[in-house]
Amino acid sequence: MSEFPEKLLSGYRNFMSGRYSDERERYRALADTGQKPHTLLVACCDSRAAPETIFDCGPGELFVVRNVANMVPRYEPDSQFHGTSAAVEYAVQVLEIRNIVVMGHGRCGGIQAALDASMKPLSEGDFIGKWMGLVRPAATQIQSNDLMTQSERQTALERVSIRNSIANLQTFPFVRNLTEKGELDIHGAWFDISTGELWVMNEKGDFTRPDISVPAIEAEQSPA
Amino acid sequence: MSEFPEKLLSGYRNFMSGRYSDERERYRALADTGQKPHTLLVACCDSRAAPETIFDCGPGELFVVRNVANMVPRYEPDSQFHGTSAAVEYAVQVLEIRNIVVMGHGRCGGIQAALDASMKPLSEGDFIGKWMGLVRPAATQIQSNDLMTQSERQTALERVSIRNSIANLQTFPFVRNLTEKGELDIHGAWFDISTGELWVMNEKGDFTRPDISVPAIEAEQSPA
Amino acid sequence: MSEFPEKLLSGYRNFMSGRYSDERERYRALADTGQKPHTLLVACCDSRAAPETIFDCGPGELFVVRNVANMVPRYEPDSQFHGTSAAVEYAVQVLEIRNIVVMGHGRCGGIQAALDASMKPLSEGDFIGKWMGLVRPAATQIQSNDLMTQSERQTALERVSIRNSIANLQTFPFVRNLTEKGELDIHGAWFDISTGELWVMNEKGDFTRPDISVPAIEAEQSPA
Amino acid sequence: MSEFPEKLLSGYRNFMSGRYSDERERYRALADTGQKPHTLLVACCDSRAAPETIFDCGPGELFVVRNVANMVPRYEPDSQFHGTSAAVEYAVQVLEIRNIVVMGHGRCGGIQAALDASMKPLSEGDFIGKWMGLVRPAATQIQSNDLMTQSERQTALERVSIRNSIANLQTFPFVRNLTEKGELDIHGAWFDISTGELWVMNEKGDFTRPDISVPAIEAEQSPA
Repeated sequence: MSEFPEKLLSGYRNFMSGRYSDERERYRALADTGQKPHTLLVACCDSRAAPETIFDCGPGELFVVRNVANMVPRYEPDSQFHGTSAAVEYAVQVLEIRNIVVMGHGRCGGIQAALDASMKPLSEGDFIGKWMGLVRPAATQIQSNDLMTQSERQTALERVSIRNSIANLQTFPFVRNLTEKGELDIHGAWFDISTGELWVMNEKGDFTRPDISVPAIEAEQSPA
Repeated sequence: MSEFPEKLLSGYRNFMSGRYSDERERYRALADTGQKPHTLLVACCDSRAAPETIFDCGPGELFVVRNVANMVPRYEPDSQFHGTSAAVEYAVQVLEIRNIVVMGHGRCGGIQAALDASMKPLSEGDFIGKWMGLVRPAATQIQSNDLMTQSERQTALERVSIRNSIANLQTFPFVRNLTEKGELDIHGAWFDISTGELWVMNEKGDFTRPDISVPAIEAEQSPA
Repeated sequence: MSEFPEKLLSGYRNFMSGRYSDERERYRALADTGQKPHTLLVACCDSRAAPETIFDCGPGELFVVRNVANMVPRYEPDSQFHGTSAAVEYAVQVLEIRNIVVMGHGRCGGIQAALDASMKPLSEGDFIGKWMGLVRPAATQIQSNDLMTQSERQTALERVSIRNSIANLQTFPFVRNLTEKGELDIHGAWFDISTGELWVMNEKGDFTRPDISVPAIEAEQSPA
Repeated sequence: MSEFPEKLLSGYRNFMSGRYSDERERYRALADTGQKPHTLLVACCDSRAAPETIFDCGPGELFVVRNVANMVPRYEPDSQFHGTSAAVEYAVQVLEIRNIVVMGHGRCGGIQAALDASMKPLSEGDFIGKWMGLVRPAATQIQSNDLMTQSERQTALERVSIRNSIANLQTFPFVRNLTEKGELDIHGAWFDISTGELWVMNEKGDFTRPDISVPAIEAEQSPA
């Protein structure tokens, strides 16, 4: 067994002398009283879309599930292991979280795989192939649109998939029950890795940019 | 549908004017060239244990799976949806990640649930019950040890579970193949939310504190 | 006959005391030497998307064709009146313009009409129905995608229509000849009326936001 | 594909930091509630005669058709594509615009082409030749008047053409119907690029200068 990655140890050292040092009491209190996060965030594993970074959240704020392509399957009370469903159940039933955000992002590798009908299994297990099967019908329909560019089809499926996960969340009886009573809100969001833009879903399912003022960014003039 | 949570929008504003503004070119480059993270991090959903925070990592560094109790199931090439296995497959086969870290943490709610034999299902689906079934035999054995305190039993299972996930990772043929060739390293880590201490697993499976110099923090330190 | 609209006369008065007064010499020179615009802009009639406003252009800069949904038909050397083709011919052959920009925009009424298969003719002539027939096949294909929201379908067709017009421009022999020689550039752009965002088409046909620095906008916090 | 013209991006930057910044709420409201322009303006493509500039109009005010020589063809309910008729139909039937202004201007290249009987087709399609055929009989008659100078003949045809388009507008049943009921007004205007003078058509069809007080401009004024 090799040494623990120096890069991570070095980052940990920064954490201890920086953030932890500043928020020591907060960590201690969170350990003593337990977590009480305000939001369950379903996000992608992608290294460029960490929710705590994008929403500048500190310890104790976000309960975060991350899987490939930020998906929530339908409610399936069978005998299988359902990691994501377990997290949703724990967040809503134990932590009593009252906000759920499903956040997708641009250039998602999982969505790209779902759109690539010719992709071969990545291993004998074909786990990605099966996992992305959750959006296969949508992928097939969208890929058949030959008027849109590949990039446009990808963005379209990224957003369809968010709506799909939100619809799937509503198949969980305890989620539906709370949303119907107005005690649980579910939101969609989409993050553009390249520009840093955040798009949030409105009541029609459309993604629009929230109206926030962001300071000017100094940058050289280089049209994309 | 209610408004998108103001807390998150406010955090996003901080991100845009702070981190994103500083790392604009990096985000853009990561979008253009694709991600190339150095580590796959299997972590818990817990709001107090965000990997990017603990390891002070920026965009593009960590490919992160987060599920309840940071578990990896055994290789099961069946027809089911395996979210965590899909993420492992994608990380190793597509992103060619060569470091995997399974990070557990203290006061883990999932581990606590696994140890509580009297716990009732949290919903009809009993997703947490089934998901924590992945460490049930270990939980049963540890819980039967009436010489340890409940807190000691919990820490013990948290660490047993990390070793269990690491053993399960080795059941994936593509993982075992690479580790045998010395091309993939797998590590364990455990984070103490209260004190901020990081413990890393050594070749014997023991967790010890890495030898790093962290600026002195005025306070006693009491490992769990 | 009623009086000439006072609103327009009042605006003209502003023009004379403002812009014209400042640019008197320029107008005079443009009258004497003739126009030499750098760009042919094909835009929509929409009152919210005036090219001179969006590109802050002064007299003599843009030769502007405006029709419903900013369309260019294919090259059809028949005996009919082709207003848009005539403008393209004049711009390229007489004015020797070497940049063509087809600019669409969000919430385009013509595109909306094209997507609405149930829309009745607006008059016996059904001019809009026939005119939007230029993108009917694309509209039919896009409207059949029931996974996208109506708003997403509209944006998709707005962009497909721009690419369609650009492809149609290439059917004009004198256009194709010049573009093949690298002496004429054709661009696509899409303007978001609500946010003021400009998106420009890249070589793949995708629309991306140009990387320009715009000063911060002061606005109250009201998520869309 | 070359870069999007820097000149336009630079102008767009000015727009965003200037006009858009000032009128942000107005753009947003116009996007939300839809456009409700007060006037349909039929203008020429000429780069020196932008209607929004001459009438100092902001977003949402003018629905603008621009073709070579600001012409409206007669009502022809055939199977052809009629871009200008489509715009008129949309403006009157959907937007319920109740003012139409046909604005011509001096030194119009299209009118000049119509007067030049010896002009060869500009391309195999001869689109300008056919398009200007809309005023061919008038052009032939005027050109035969050898007592007027070429410049006088041009101004004469520019004005005849405006009256011709206004007469053609009256051949549209839905236009005639509304004008007869006094619910739709049609106006003519002619803009002198060189001097900035605006001339408006009176009930006899004559063009006269409206009685507006414009701050004195130091220079002789010489109507064409």
